Formats: sequence, structure tokens, C-alpha cells
Amino acid sequence: MRSTIDFLLHDWLGVESLCTRPRFEAHSRETFATVLDTCERIAAERFAPYNRLVDKEEPRIEGDAVVLPRYSYEAAKAYAESGMLAAAQDQSMQGLQLPCVIEMAGNAFFLKAGVSLGGGAGLTAGNANLLMTHGTEAQKSVFARQQFAGRWSGTMCLSESHAGSSLSDISTRAVPDGPDHARDLLGPRYRLFGQKTWVSCGEHELTENIIHLVLAKIPRADGSLVAGTRGISLFIVPKRLVDARGVLTGERNDVALAGLNHKLGFRGLPNALLNFGEGRYCVEGRSGAIGYLVGQAGDGLRCMFHMMNEARIGVGLGAVALGYAGFEASLEYARNRRQGRPAGSKGKDFARPQIPIIEHADVRRMLLAQKAYVEGGLALALYCARLVDERRTGTPARAAEAASVLEVLTPIAKSWPSEWCLEANSLAIQVHGGYGYTTDFPVEQLWRDNRLNMIHEGTHGIQALDLLGRKVVMQEGACLELLGARVADTVQRGREEHDLREFAHVLESAFGKVLETVRSAWSGVEPEGVRANATPFLPAFGHTVIAWIWLDLAIAARRVRESHKAGERSPPLRGKLQAARYFFEYELPKIDAWLGVVASCNPTCREMQDDWFCE
Amino acid sequence: MRSTIDFLLHDWLGVESLCTRPRFEAHSRETFATVLDTCERIAAERFAPYNRLVDKEEPRIEGDAVVLPRYSYEAAKAYAESGMLAAAQDQSMQGLQLPCVIEMAGNAFFLKAGVSLGGGAGLTAGNANLLMTHGTEAQKSVFARQQFAGRWSGTMCLSESHAGSSLSDISTRAVPDGPDHARDLLGPRYRLFGQKTWVSCGEHELTENIIHLVLAKIPRADGSLVAGTRGISLFIVPKRLVDARGVLTGERNDVALAGLNHKLGFRGLPNALLNFGEGRYCVEGRSGAIGYLVGQAGDGLRCMFHMMNEARIGVGLGAVALGYAGFEASLEYARNRRQGRPAGSKGKDFARPQIPIIEHADVRRMLLAQKAYVEGGLALALYCARLVDERRTGTPARAAEAASVLEVLTPIAKSWPSEWCLEANSLAIQVHGGYGYTTDFPVEQLWRDNRLNMIHEGTHGIQALDLLGRKVVMQEGACLELLGARVADTVQRGREEHDLREFAHVLESAFGKVLETVRSAWSGVEPEGVRANATPFLPAFGHTVIAWIWLDLAIAARRVRESHKAGERSPPLRGKLQAARYFFEYELPKIDAWLGVVASCNPTCREMQDDWFCE
Repeated sequence: MRSTIDFLLHDWLGVESLCTRPRFEAHSRETFATVLDTCERIAAERFAPYNRLVDKEEPRIEGDAVVLPRYSYEAAKAYAESGMLAAAQDQSMQGLQLPCVIEMAGNAFFLKAGVSLGGGAGLTAGNANLLMTHGTEAQKSVFARQQFAGRWSGTMCLSESHAGSSLSDISTRAVPDGPDHARDLLGPRYRLFGQKTWVSCGEHELTENIIHLVLAKIPRADGSLVAGTRGISLFIVPKRLVDARGVLTGERNDVALAGLNHKLGFRGLPNALLNFGEGRYCVEGRSGAIGYLVGQAGDGLRCMFHMMNEARIGVGLGAVALGYAGFEASLEYARNRRQGRPAGSKGKDFARPQIPIIEHADVRRMLLAQKAYVEGGLALALYCARLVDERRTGTPARAAEAASVLEVLTPIAKSWPSEWCLEANSLAIQVHGGYGYTTDFPVEQLWRDNRLNMIHEGTHGIQALDLLGRKVVMQEGACLELLGARVADTVQRGREEHDLREFAHVLESAFGKVLETVRSAWSGVEPEGVRANATPFLPAFGHTVIAWIWLDLAIAARRVRESHKAGERSPPLRGKLQAARYFFEYELPKIDAWLGVVASCNPTCREMQDDWFCE
Repeated sequence: MRSTIDFLLHDWLGVESLCTRPRFEAHSRETFATVLDTCERIAAERFAPYNRLVDKEEPRIEGDAVVLPRYSYEAAKAYAESGMLAAAQDQSMQGLQLPCVIEMAGNAFFLKAGVSLGGGAGLTAGNANLLMTHGTEAQKSVFARQQFAGRWSGTMCLSESHAGSSLSDISTRAVPDGPDHARDLLGPRYRLFGQKTWVSCGEHELTENIIHLVLAKIPRADGSLVAGTRGISLFIVPKRLVDARGVLTGERNDVALAGLNHKLGFRGLPNALLNFGEGRYCVEGRSGAIGYLVGQAGDGLRCMFHMMNEARIGVGLGAVALGYAGFEASLEYARNRRQGRPAGSKGKDFARPQIPIIEHADVRRMLLAQKAYVEGGLALALYCARLVDERRTGTPARAAEAASVLEVLTPIAKSWPSEWCLEANSLAIQVHGGYGYTTDFPVEQLWRDNRLNMIHEGTHGIQALDLLGRKVVMQEGACLELLGARVADTVQRGREEHDLREFAHVLESAFGKVLETVRSAWSGVEPEGVRANATPFLPAFGHTVIAWIWLDLAIAARRVRESHKAGERSPPLRGKLQAARYFFEYELPKIDAWLGVVASCNPTCREMQDDWFCE
């Protein structure tokens, strides 16, 4: 993976140029390399050897505590020591002040080595990042700082059992805690009451404290809750109470573990049901979990979603990393496993030894498909991260453009790897044959782990509605047009390369079909007819985006090959060109079938009636 | 599932007409119904409640024995008592003398309720069926009879750790056991030496004996083994030795458990490594497992494959049943789970309660896709079973025609449900959202269980080679032509139905594309170029076959609806028509992308080089 990451960062994204910007002036290609070296090493030493073990030794409850195997502690500690929790933070916060694209690249090594190790570091960093944007100075210095240092960890508490995708229906209540509640140095103080579910790392002893970010509603004077998302506010709810300087008071907050979910994968991370304010740990003699308001009341969902977009790119990156792990495992297996012989004109020659299965065309197909999926997905994730950097540190015009392109790419960055790198994992199992179905090889676990990614942080269907229902038409289609301009630029450059000309033509045509489909779908009168086919649009748009990425990568690879001097160690990148070819020839043609139903607002699913299902 | 099975058996396949044939003259629609009632009831009572438990309580080794949870014993006993082990056997063998199509339909209930319960009944029946075809009278009355009665169970021992898909490379040896070896009443007696793996139900205490059917090679006089598959012979190797009357002698045969595989799914069934002849249980003071030759020496693979074809339809049926279980579970969940609200012209009205998620178009899409996959797959499996009956009991001309059509359909009957009913299980998880990812709901287990089906009994890639490399061109394409005639007949009838005319046209065109693709691919000079793209041909051919099946079902459903009288309880079958529509509009268009690479003998995967994968 490292050589591909280096190719993507330097030969394709030119990240070194970021070092001319004031924010990154302390950095260079060498410091970036050091970060990646460190991540790769720690992931190999402290994550990879334990990935199977944490799958087998599921977190369990002992008394009030959640017990994890010791590897989880060691991995979390190693990750914190790497400094990556504060990778993107200012040096004044003991951060590494790295570009997002380097942070993501470094994290890919950890995610590949053990996606459920590291104690939910992504959550902790995300939690603290949110506070850096929306929190008060006190909240930053007390809650964010400790998280960046790895002493405390963080969670997101959104869903309730009756309110998953429909967050507007949450019923956790937050009431002002006494007459002086507005004067607390840590922020307006409330008491929270309610139950949250699907809380990753919601309870454990990996760190001395856990900082929950909790969505809740502040009741009106008559006790009623504001309907819809406008009524939602965001609160910091520490597991253990702290004073204004951030020192633990020794008192436990009223947050109680109500149970753990037993999952198909991601089993190294505890996933908890938490009761807030049930009275198990009364504070000052009263039930109610102490929470500090973040930002404005009623503004909670906006604050949370500010970080959700980057979380979604992170989910995509995790899916890619799992796909990559399967690709590497099955490539190694295919090189070593011998089975069968080539059929010659007179049949098979049994006097010859069996051949490594990588010599069978169908095995090569399965490996090449994986390569096209996982490297294409990795490129997309890093491309999006590079856009995040542009949004943060580019000129105002370029920052705005980057932000708009990100709007349309984010649903794809999350959903496409979740679907196709899961398929890559299935192919990795298939390459292994029966062995892939056993726990003696890593691939079945990767496939189980990866199945989560189509569900959490906004399901596949939610991503689809976001993309087709909102993003492609927002700002009167301006975001989609900006993406189109980037695609057109790649097409133009592709036309100039003799052996890529055909792909440039095909990509132009495919993107044209996508635009025409959007126009056609939205030309009807019923938005519901469009939204009913949002999900088939997702892989169609995604495959077109990835084809664009692959053409762009192929152009970069050609450039590298042309400047390559014989005898140098730099790789000839023929595999990248072949993967691009695979994607254009085997994958991109699939879009027509998906786009067809979108363009025509096919009514079959909408018209299906409940009582027909059993007929 | 029952109402769909009744529709398929009676309104579509007209199985009642079989009862006019001498073999089935004791049967009637009523006796068939009694069999299905019994299967449905036992499956519901003795299988379904324990399916999750046997997943959790994996088989384990204690001393020399494999310990299973008690539900496995009870389920195996209940299955044996149902008489289904001998469903297709003569009444003189205490069989039910049922058509294969009824046997498969009945087994679908067990497979849906608990695919890894029942103690590998399918294997036992398959083992005994093979002996009824290829065994001697003594072998039938000693080994087959006890298996049909459920007192003994059966296995297939084919793979060795270095010889999975490449069976020609097995190295288990069988040497004549003493000078009188040819005169044993149970068949020519050999001593076997070697190790077999992936032996489902290879060791357990569910039955008093286990009858292994083992592939091994009889060495030449110089001790060498005949290369290739022609050297393979088939042996009966009982776990416990028996005398010529079939009475246990009390002596253990030299078959030793070497380990159990730990699997992703199908965890209720132990999967063993067995050592034959290692000397752990010496017989008459010498090592070597006693085995009795079945059929002719060197004819073992043909004997084994005689039953493999029906085993492959059975694998497809199992995949369908798992898909069906997920469909039913997610349908129930979608009807009860409330989440979200419809977006009206003024946005969502939060004053209204949340709606059952089945009201969301995308959830209906996921349910309708499952319905199209699992009912289409079920119809294909029963269609194939009906062809088996025709082959066995039809007039010579019709039997020959049925056998030829079965040749081309068998790889699809096995592979299509393995791929698309697995996809159905993934959709079932998705309908459940986060809950689907937990062990509190059945769908994650179904998905894990189903992943096996693309691997065992000939991998997906092997099925593809069998189909494109052999079946579609065998007898100069005659088998494919016979299938084409059946498709044409459906197209003709579809044209006469006003609202199905369009689908008839589309199907005709799709089948034409398939034929043209086969012609185009095989018109080249290099068979390797064709075979390299065999796997993409599999779903293309499969989707076309299933579209044909769905059109045929739709025609049958229309006929039922037309003869339906108001007030009768018979179902109006609108769901079948809608699923057909879904399949034609959402699924069938996918074939173009798959066929494209087949027709052009796309060389991308063949040309990919090993050392390019890391570039």
C-alpha cells in the first residue's frame, strides 16, 4: 500500500506543494514520509498481529465495566503516542499541523491493520475536532486537549432505539441544572435524561475519562419538545466529572452502561447502550447526567454534521483499508497456493507440477478487480482529503470551489468503497476457496468488518438521497458542474495520450449520461419518483467518478513512466495502467443499467404494495 | 414460502400430472400436500428455534469425539423421522417414492429454518443415492438402507489439502487388503491411507455409524499413482466396521479425526480433517482404513459426479432458502419498524407519527429485489428438479431432452442463487439497519451461512468454466438450443398477453445476445481467451435464465388471476407480476456489461502479470 500511497500523494496529488502554505511551512516531503513511516511501523507492530484476537475476544461486561483484551489497550496507547490524534491540530495544541491528506494517508495503515483496534481513535479525534470548531475556549482546553493527548477518549451519542436514521425523533431531554446553570465555566450546564444506542466506545477503561457528545432536546416551558431537527442541541457529557481546570473531581457522572451490542464485525470496539440520567450515579444527590451545551441551543445537528462530512470520508477510507487488507492477503495466497494446470492443446499435462493459482486467468481477474476497487477507492479518499485541505487553506475562490466539489463527492467517498471494497473482500475470500471461509485466514473477518460501512454514519440509502435528492441539484447544479469541469479537464488531458484516448472518450460519454440522467429524472413533476430510485444512482455516479479517477491516475502513471530512467528503482506502474483498463472495460459499462431506472423515474418499487409481498 | 411453493408446483409446473406415471401412482396432490405440511411443521418446530444456537455453540472436540449441542441431535432425529432421507426411494426401500421436485420443495423448509441443522441430511441422502446407482446389492442393503433409515449418516471425502478444485491430484492410496480382498461380500476390500479435508459431518455422534465415500487411487504394481482423474476410484469406508449383514462388529475402522475447521458460517455442521490409515485404530493389528470399492476401479470420479449434479441443484436450493429466510425476516421487520416520515410539499410533518419503513420506496426496492431473487431462484431450483423427474420417468425422447436442458441449467442452478441470494441476504441486513449487524436478528447469520455456497461443490469459477467452456458448446450447442426452444415457447406465449408483450420482446432480445456472445467468443482461435472471461458470463446467462423464468411465472400468474373468482381465497398474485417487472426493469439490463467482455474475449485479465499487482 505504501508505494501506492506515495504515488497518489506525490505523483498524482502533488501534496508537497502544500508546504509552501503558511500552515504547513514546517513540513516537507521528508516530514510527511516520517509520519507515514511511523504509522506504517506502529500499525504493523501493534495492530496487525492482534486484529484476529480482538475479533475473537469480544468486549464483555464485568460489573459496571467493559473489559477489553490487553492488545486493545496497547494499540490505543501506541496510537496516542504516534501523535496522530492531533495530526491536523495546531502546534500550539501539541498538534502535528499536518494536511488532512497526510492524516488520512497515515490513518489508512492503522485501519488496514486493525479497523477495530486503537480504541476508536477516529471518534476521539472527531469529537475533539468538533469542539475546536464549535466549543468555547474552556471546552477546547479542558475536553479537546485531553482527547488529542490520548488521555481521554470521545464518543458520538446520536441514535436512540426509535430514532436511528430519523434523528429528528430523539427524545433525550436536557433541562437547565439549577439557577446558576448558565454561569458554569465549562458551558451552560444541563441535566440529561434518555437512552442512546449504537455508541461506539461508549464504555471502556482504555482511558481515564470518556467525553460523550450527546444530541438532546431542551424542553419548552410547558415541557414539550420541539419537533424536527431544529429542536436538537449538542452537549458534552463526561463519564467522570471534571472541574474548570479539567481535573477529575472523583465523582462519576450519571451515565450508565445499559448493555453491549453483539456485532457481526468490528468486534474489537465495544458498542454500547447508555442510559443518561437514570440515577445510577447521582450527582449532588440527584439523578440526571451533567452536560455542557456546545454552540447554540437548537444548533446541535448542524454542529454534529459539520464533522459528519469528514467522518464520512473516514468511513470510506476504512472500507478501502479493509479492501486493501483483503487484496494483499489474497495476492499473497494466490502466489503461494498451487492448484491445477494450464490446459494445453492435448489437455492437461499431469506430469508437470501444479501451478500457483495466480496463473489462472480467473484468479487474476479477481485480484485485478480488487486492485481496481481498492486503489480507486483509496485515490478517491485522498482526493477528497486534499479538497478538505484546499477548503481550509486555499485562496477564497479555490476554497469555495473545493467545498462545492466536496459536496457532491462526499456521499460517494462514503458509499462507493462501502459497497465495492466489500465486494473486494468477497473476492478475496473467493481467491482463498474453502480456506477463505475459515477463521485460519484473515479474509472472512475483513468481509464481516466491512459490512458495517454501508450502515453507519448514514446508511447507503441516506447517502443516495443526499446525492440525488440534494447534492447534484444544489446551487442549481453548480456543485455538479464544478465536478464536471474537473472531469472535462481529465478528459482533455487523456485525449493527448495515445493509448488513453479511447478511455477519455468513454469517460466523457459516461459523465454525459450521468448529467442527462439527472436532468431527465428531475424534469418530472414528482420528487418522490426521483428519490425512489436514488440508490441505483449511487453506484452509477460512483463508478463514473472512479473511472474519472482511474483515467487521471493513468495519465499520472504515464507521465511517471516517461520520465523514468532505466536503472532507477521507481516502479514502472504497469499495474496502475492495467487496473485503469480493467475498470473501463469491466466496470464502467455497468452504469447504463443503473442509470436507466433513474432517468425514467421507474415506478415499480414505489407502486409495490405491502400486501403484495406475500403473493 | 408455502403459498409460493404451491403456486410453483401446481399452477406453474403442474406436478400433479406426474401422478399418472407408474412410479408416482400412489401419490396425489393431497399426499404431496401432506409431505409439505410435515416438512413445514418439523422445520418450524425442531429447526427454526435452534438455528441461532447452533451458530453460537460451534462443534468442539472432546477426546476423540466431536460434541454438538443437543438441538442438533433432536433436529437430525426429527428429520430422519420425517422419512425425507428416503423421499425419492422405492417403497421397497421404505422410501416415499416421491418425485424429486416434491423432495426439493419439502427440503426447502428445512434449509430455510436451519441450513446447518439436520446433521447433513443432504449428504446422507446423496451418499445413499449414489450407492443405489453404483453399489452392489450388498452395498445397497447394508450401507444405503441404514442411511435412508437415519441410523447411519454419510459423507463425501474428496478434497485433500493440496487437491481441492484439482481432484486429479489426490494422493490418498488404496491397496488391496490381503489375498482374499476380492472376495469380501461387501465389495473388493482395500486399505486406505491419506488425509481428507473439508469433510462435512466427518465426525460426530449423531448416528451410530458414519459411512464415508472416499476418492482414492489404487497404485500400480510399481507403487506409482495414475495421473489425472482416470486413476481415481471410489470406496465405502465406514467409521465403525460392520459384518456382511450390516451389524456393527464393535471394531473401529482406522479413520481418525485430525481436526475441525472453524468456519464463517454453517457452524452447526462439523467440518473435519480426517486421517485414513494413520494407525490410530488398527484393524487386525495393522494400520490402514478398510474400504470397499464402489463400481469399477478408475471410475470413481464419474460415480461421484453422477450425484454431484443433483448436489449442485441442492446447493442452489440451500442458497435460495437462506435468501428466503432473510426476505421473510426483513419483510417482517420493515412492517413493524417505524422510522421517518414522508416528505410532503412543505417538508415533513413531525406532528404525525413515524411510518413503518416498508412505506419508504427504497425499503420496498430492497424487499422487491429480494423477492425477485429468492422466488426466481426457487422457481429455477424446482424447474431443474422437475427436469430430473422427467429424465428419470419421462418417455425416452423427453427424458433425453430434459437431460440436455439440465446440462446447461445445472451450473446456473448452483451459481446464480449462490451469488444473488447472498445479495438478497445483504439487502436483508440493510433493511434492518444497525440491528441487522447484530446477533439479535437472524440476518447476519444467514449472510454468513450463504457465503459458503459460492465455494463448495465446485467454486463459482469452476461453474463458469463448466458453463461457458463446456455446456453451451457441448453436442455442438444442442443443449443450448433445446433451452432456446423452451425460451422461445415462453416468448411466444408472453406475446399473447397484452401487458407482458414488452417483456417477451426484451427476453427474446436478451437470449439472442447470449447466443451471439457464445458464437462470438468461440469464433476466436484461443479457447483460453474464452475461458478467461467465463465468470462474467455466469451472471449474464443466469440473469437471462431467471428473466425467462420470471416471464413464464408471470404468464402462469396471469392465467391464475383470470380464472380467479371473486370471493375465493386464492391469492391474486400481483406480487409475482411486480417481481417479474422488477426483474426485467432493474436486473436484466445488467447483462450487457457482462456479455461485452465475454464476446470480445477481453484480454485484460489474462495479460495482467504477477509483478504488476504491486505497482
